[in-house]
Amino acid sequence: MRFTIDKEQFLKGLSIAGRAVPSSANLPALLCFKLSLSSKGLEIVASNNDVSIWTVVPHSVNEREIIRNSLPGQALINAKVLTEVIRKSGGEEISFEIIDDSIAKIEDGNSAYRLTCSDVEEYPEIDTESQGIPFTVPCSEVAALVEQTAFAASNKDARAALTAVNLKAENGKLIATATDSARLSRKSIDVDPSVRFSTNIPAKNLSEIVRLFDDATDVEITPSAEKIVFAFGQTIASSRLISEDYPVKGQIIPTNFNYFLRVNSAQLLNALERVSILTAASRASVVALTMDDEGVEVSANGDQVGSGNERLQMAEFNGDRLQISFNSVYVAQAVRALGSEEVTMQFIGEMKPFVVRNPHDDSVVELITPMRTR
Amino acid sequence: MRFTIDKEQFLKGLSIAGRAVPSSANLPALLCFKLSLSSKGLEIVASNNDVSIWTVVPHSVNEREIIRNSLPGQALINAKVLTEVIRKSGGEEISFEIIDDSIAKIEDGNSAYRLTCSDVEEYPEIDTESQGIPFTVPCSEVAALVEQTAFAASNKDARAALTAVNLKAENGKLIATATDSARLSRKSIDVDPSVRFSTNIPAKNLSEIVRLFDDATDVEITPSAEKIVFAFGQTIASSRLISEDYPVKGQIIPTNFNYFLRVNSAQLLNALERVSILTAASRASVVALTMDDEGVEVSANGDQVGSGNERLQMAEFNGDRLQISFNSVYVAQAVRALGSEEVTMQFIGEMKPFVVRNPHDDSVVELITPMRTR
Repeated sequence: MRFTIDKEQFLKGLSIAGRAVPSSANLPALLCFKLSLSSKGLEIVASNNDVSIWTVVPHSVNEREIIRNSLPGQALINAKVLTEVIRKSGGEEISFEIIDDSIAKIEDGNSAYRLTCSDVEEYPEIDTESQGIPFTVPCSEVAALVEQTAFAASNKDARAALTAVNLKAENGKLIATATDSARLSRKSIDVDPSVRFSTNIPAKNLSEIVRLFDDATDVEITPSAEKIVFAFGQTIASSRLISEDYPVKGQIIPTNFNYFLRVNSAQLLNALERVSILTAASRASVVALTMDDEGVEVSANGDQVGSGNERLQMAEFNGDRLQISFNSVYVAQAVRALGSEEVTMQFIGEMKPFVVRNPHDDSVVELITPMRTR
Repeated sequence: MRFTIDKEQFLKGLSIAGRAVPSSANLPALLCFKLSLSSKGLEIVASNNDVSIWTVVPHSVNEREIIRNSLPGQALINAKVLTEVIRKSGGEEISFEIIDDSIAKIEDGNSAYRLTCSDVEEYPEIDTESQGIPFTVPCSEVAALVEQTAFAASNKDARAALTAVNLKAENGKLIATATDSARLSRKSIDVDPSVRFSTNIPAKNLSEIVRLFDDATDVEITPSAEKIVFAFGQTIASSRLISEDYPVKGQIIPTNFNYFLRVNSAQLLNALERVSILTAASRASVVALTMDDEGVEVSANGDQVGSGNERLQMAEFNGDRLQISFNSVYVAQAVRALGSEEVTMQFIGEMKPFVVRNPHDDSVVELITPMRTR
């Protein structure tokens, strides 16, 4: 294998595939990129068994030559070292050549590196072929679907299904649901009504994959029994699935509320952050919201530290007096995920789950279970 | 105690004193600030037994009122919580009042915090009085003295004197020396010839103290047998000393060299950084510099990874061919500390210590011991 390649395009490809390189691996080959120079361009494959990424640096982009002087071939090469050597190159073009099947000679004019290569036979079979029925949606919508829900999944492995985002298509909607059992996020986007499936994808894999969308416009998604495949731009990424049953079924978002709060998001976040100073030493940051005709206050109590309360100026409340306590991290994450200037919070009572919404977007809802005040 | 204070000035005082607050302490009172409102202003004291800081927020600055509505008194209050509560305040003025000797009531218009206070009697006696003969030097010169030397001290506690910067005044020079035994940094500035002392100050304390200089112009330094005191602006900081003998005496910088290299600093740093990718898994980053009539190259060899070399375009060498190996971290830190566009490197031979200098500033010298190439 031999090629001369545009440095920036090479680095972009390495960075995309690099997202799937594990920091340690039982199989040392997984610490490598599998590079293949073919008629498609320079194909770069990486996998951590959880996520696999295939991407290609094409021979030319918009008639500009990206790869020249090429001789097809394959090699395995340490991903981290190769990426750093290319990233820190001062040149605009990199020449790359495999010599004696064991050394990659990499030159940029002022420098010469000779990196050890391994036999491509050591690399496991990475299957990024899609085997189901694909459907296509805009990247921006899938990114929002994931960014507004995945944070609510559990990051503990105790119950695998809770670490997943459930992705379900029915009746022309693609619905993402994530929950760690104390809070739940759900968002839907439109899809073709013929698309029907339900699958559980590790939340961190999904978040990793949508981060790769970059300037791609559409993503082709192919769910199947073993994996889900996302194809966008010059890249294909696949994720393993979690086969357990998803614990949330049907309609679990309450619809009848007794209390209604509309509040400026930035002001609420600032108040939560400031009173949480007092609970920094506690296991959970329990914060209370007190609402009545007089106004709306956020307050917290730190055992040995003291107490604090913040009045929210830009808040509008309807209902009788209500005090409700919750984990401030859950509310702050929900408000940030909504990304709106204001949020509405709707309550049934002090010990019932409440919802946080963007008043201008009813495709997304955040549900949070209150905590008992100590 | 009671006062209403400008938020920014209060936060500035807390941030300065906060540098001396330990993250954990056997004596819980050390996690607090000792606040005293006196005729000088609001005095804030903090100490971690290693460094003690006293600073004052004056009643007024340039005739602008900083503190009003004041009633003298004292209190101990958790440093981290108080600093964060003030930092995150949205108000321009903070009102502070001790009630029942046990609660600090802190209000900014929209918020009310009640923080637990402790009895000031629990705080140890902090002595920031200076007991020797003071001398005064410009802050900028002392900062350079410390920044260009302290990094060379050891950060391991094995031999206490090596964790110190030796500060010595004689013959009108104030000389700072730091060494971890594999490399040494030395810099001198002018002082009044009457100043004579030699003392060892923990390098990390010195670095911490010069970082507080901010916009002060001069610093009054008072060395004594037990401590060294720095007074600047509205702040006094003192450090404990290390009483062991300093291991470096007299003239240890070689003066006769056989090889002379002048090189662009940025280019050398880039080359060191890039070849060090290959040694990232090694205990020390051993890098070789190869110099002859043909040019100057930096190279490294990573056992299982491969090898690399970088040609330095902007380099000028005089001498016979020389290859010398060293810890790249030592050379990179020395070059960065010199802060000059170019550095000169002077060598005696491949196993003799070599010096790195700023060609335009002979007050500072960095001495580095080579390593054997593997």
